[in-house]
Amino acid sequence: MNITRIDPGPRLCEASAFGDRMYLSGMIPEDTSLDVTGQVKQALAEIDSLLAKGGSDKTKILSAVIWLSDIADFAAMNKVWDAWVVPGQTPARATVQARLNDPNMKVEIMVVAAI
Amino acid sequence: MNITRIDPGPRLCEASAFGDRMYLSGMIPEDTSLDVTGQVKQALAEIDSLLAKGGSDKTKILSAVIWLSDIADFAAMNKVWDAWVVPGQTPARATVQARLNDPNMKVEIMVVAAI
Amino acid sequence: MNITRIDPGPRLCEASAFGDRMYLSGMIPEDTSLDVTGQVKQALAEIDSLLAKGGSDKTKILSAVIWLSDIADFAAMNKVWDAWVVPGQTPARATVQARLNDPNMKVEIMVVAAI
Repeated sequence: MNITRIDPGPRLCEASAFGDRMYLSGMIPEDTSLDVTGQVKQALAEIDSLLAKGGSDKTKILSAVIWLSDIADFAAMNKVWDAWVVPGQTPARATVQARLNDPNMKVEIMVVAAI
Repeated sequence: MNITRIDPGPRLCEASAFGDRMYLSGMIPEDTSLDVTGQVKQALAEIDSLLAKGGSDKTKILSAVIWLSDIADFAAMNKVWDAWVVPGQTPARATVQARLNDPNMKVEIMVVAAI
Repeated sequence: MNITRIDPGPRLCEASAFGDRMYLSGMIPEDTSLDVTGQVKQALAEIDSLLAKGGSDKTKILSAVIWLSDIADFAAMNKVWDAWVVPGQTPARATVQARLNDPNMKVEIMVVAAI
């Protein structure tokens, strides 16, 4: 069984697929000038895009870790998240605060999904 | 192969099961007025309960991430953890400090287990 | 199907293997007096060693989480990482800042790999 690497670069790939499971890199917003709502929307759109490339979708996410650079953004992040997930098919999840590489970046989300 | 969601809510499920593996949400104490010992005991009891619902148990945990809101609680957390795990069947683990959503919450634990 | 525990101790094992996947504990440097370059090299050498014990290697890493005690070490960590990974076979990855148990420890890396 082979490992498929989606968009492999010299440092990391955007996602790896092995058997019936995909492992995504921490997805981040493209435009870090946006507020947390906009940044979460962008990160989730990146996840949608990568899942599609691997033959999966958001109803098949098994587990998600969400890092917020400021845990005070928890409610605002959840508002976007709750509108994005599909009722009855919500994944396991943990959310914690962590400083991210770019000080303007407010969120990073890493998921494992079934294919 | 279907994904089974345990206690799915509008935001997340407590655990997802797919094939021979379970992914739990970050488990937290119910009573955040407790000290770290009490909070870790409650989080581990939640893990026991969810693993049982998925047909697994603590001897089948593959990997655990533990977030402590204060890494100074490392020794106190380990005392409870060490009494809980089963010798010879201890999982891979990482423990780091992270601010959690509820400022009174001292611990969150996320595990992946075989079924 | 059995779970194999590599170097199981009373608290955790260095890695668990189940089916076609390995889950490593957070790997840390042995010598925390080293600078970040030296510490990252040691953590990655530990990963190499454990993957070999489980019948895997760094080209089969699916996913990695890197915790830096100071995110300002991001560039220095990446320099070592980039030289270590194999082009075309780079894993999914996320890097965030987190305080680690030993205040002299600058890095901890946790990976999931195919076998």
